[in-house]
Amino acid sequence: MTTNVSAIAAPAANTPLVRTTVPRRPVGEHDVLIEIKYAGICHSDIHQVRNGWGEGIFPMVPGHEIAGIVTEVGPGVTRHRVGDRVGVGCFVDSCRECEQCRQGLEQYCTGKGTSTYNDLDKNGEPTYGGYSTHIVVDENYTLRIPEGIPLDAAAPLLCAGVTLYSPLTHWQAGPGKKVAIVGLGGLGHMGVKIAHALGAEVTVLSQSLKKQEDALKLGADHYYATSDPETFAALRGSFDLVISTVSAPLDFDAYLSLVKPDGTMVNVGAPEEPVKVALFSLIIGRKTLAGSMIGSIAETQEMLDFCAAHSLAAEIELITADQVNEAYERVLASDVRYRFVIDASTI
Amino acid sequence: MTTNVSAIAAPAANTPLVRTTVPRRPVGEHDVLIEIKYAGICHSDIHQVRNGWGEGIFPMVPGHEIAGIVTEVGPGVTRHRVGDRVGVGCFVDSCRECEQCRQGLEQYCTGKGTSTYNDLDKNGEPTYGGYSTHIVVDENYTLRIPEGIPLDAAAPLLCAGVTLYSPLTHWQAGPGKKVAIVGLGGLGHMGVKIAHALGAEVTVLSQSLKKQEDALKLGADHYYATSDPETFAALRGSFDLVISTVSAPLDFDAYLSLVKPDGTMVNVGAPEEPVKVALFSLIIGRKTLAGSMIGSIAETQEMLDFCAAHSLAAEIELITADQVNEAYERVLASDVRYRFVIDASTI
Repeated sequence: MTTNVSAIAAPAANTPLVRTTVPRRPVGEHDVLIEIKYAGICHSDIHQVRNGWGEGIFPMVPGHEIAGIVTEVGPGVTRHRVGDRVGVGCFVDSCRECEQCRQGLEQYCTGKGTSTYNDLDKNGEPTYGGYSTHIVVDENYTLRIPEGIPLDAAAPLLCAGVTLYSPLTHWQAGPGKKVAIVGLGGLGHMGVKIAHALGAEVTVLSQSLKKQEDALKLGADHYYATSDPETFAALRGSFDLVISTVSAPLDFDAYLSLVKPDGTMVNVGAPEEPVKVALFSLIIGRKTLAGSMIGSIAETQEMLDFCAAHSLAAEIELITADQVNEAYERVLASDVRYRFVIDASTI
Repeated sequence: MTTNVSAIAAPAANTPLVRTTVPRRPVGEHDVLIEIKYAGICHSDIHQVRNGWGEGIFPMVPGHEIAGIVTEVGPGVTRHRVGDRVGVGCFVDSCRECEQCRQGLEQYCTGKGTSTYNDLDKNGEPTYGGYSTHIVVDENYTLRIPEGIPLDAAAPLLCAGVTLYSPLTHWQAGPGKKVAIVGLGGLGHMGVKIAHALGAEVTVLSQSLKKQEDALKLGADHYYATSDPETFAALRGSFDLVISTVSAPLDFDAYLSLVKPDGTMVNVGAPEEPVKVALFSLIIGRKTLAGSMIGSIAETQEMLDFCAAHSLAAEIELITADQVNEAYERVLASDVRYRFVIDASTI
């Protein structure tokens, strides 16, 4: 039976979020019902509420960094039990048939994938995200959160964590590798922690020096301000891997000049406008400019287990439901260290 | 003793090429003297003669697709003997000390590399290229041309051949892989031949249908005209590897849409102006946009041996020294199938 649950939603594009209720589907054969404990605020939540990527589906309940407890399971569920600590990330289903799904790369599903919110599920019903008290999700798209990680600090791992873990491991950050993380926000701070735990030598490239102390505490070995032109001269040809977490349009040729021959610059943040690149920045040194988007289900589980093994989680500021609109403004002003997490008990 | 040898040179930027003589250094301890038999005309020769990449060194003797016979060797030479069939490509020395040189990736030398022409050698003397009767080159930067390949058709392999062989093998073109070659000129036609010989399924993407018959003869499995908008819809998400050989600014988002998730678009041609790319074209599907420049000495030798084993060489139009200026105009008009080669006996 469909159940209405409490949530915080944007009634229409560019409106403040308000309290409401949204329907959750009955718990199906392979579904789990999750009592949401915490939901992280991702920059893309704000983007979508404000229709930054085109037509949104409203009312919109954002939230794809979800941590909670299983309270009911469908009869066919084998992966989770009532009482389990679980998480849900950016997608709650995928086509399961395309080449990517068959390879376990569901994040790049080229069939009908289903985003956690602002999408339609396979039955054509809108999906509603994690700013809510409960959610029903297929067991195969539900992650286990290991005991070692507090649930509130675990929530942001489901998007921010895996968004950095995936390119760091795909492009083999580890001992002997020099990695630069561009931008020290919700994504960047997880990049520093994970890259450090993987054994790489980590440099933070941030606009100003104001987050330097934080960065070193998070595990960075070096920190440079990109507003200082000497930074680019000093670091020329230094990095095996540069990961940009920023959505501002960078001077890509300048950043590519920091990459070693055969190195890669990966973008997990994306400006809305096309960026300019001189192809000689890639040709000389066989460099690659790449993109990466979240991670697969298996990779997200691997990331959670890795974080537990290394005692890693997000740095968070816990807020109540009433503070979400204010928090959005603070995210836009880069005034958060480093992730807002909503206490779902206040929704 | 320095020897003056016959050559064809541009006396100054943007002037026609004329007959002249240029000095060649004495044959040193590790040098070989090569009697040049054939020299290919590369598009970049024209670019440099016309100062397309900035200040050139004049008089300029272009030519970095050189095939000839060893006529003298220095006392320390062990790699070549008098009478050997040899080739010289785009560079005649490198710093031998940087990380890239130590890894055998001399084409990406970050120290003092030495281009075959339009450069200064380690003694500060200008280098002069292959449009000439003789050249003196360090044995370590001289390639063996296997018996199976005619010398005239071998010359273009030293640049055009390795420029395609390197990215095709680096990005693992082979059985089960779908490869698109954009542009069917001097570079592209070698791309088709080599990709086919590597066992990949090869598609040519060319502006019009006029080279379709040629492409299929060269080994292409499919051919599409990029002027037909349906091409991009039909081939969406088709290719593991797209190699662009064109220097015109492409619609990179359109070409990246042809790449499979985890696939790569490699540029070996380069527009002079920066290109525009929407980062979402890379992020969705974890795609990479890369560049690649010629190949290493070891890789060039491997390519020559591969071409001999597969009976591959360039499709050429043999010309005399007197026809070089006219040939330049025809290259600029894309009126060559597929490489002009100068018969050095006419210089």
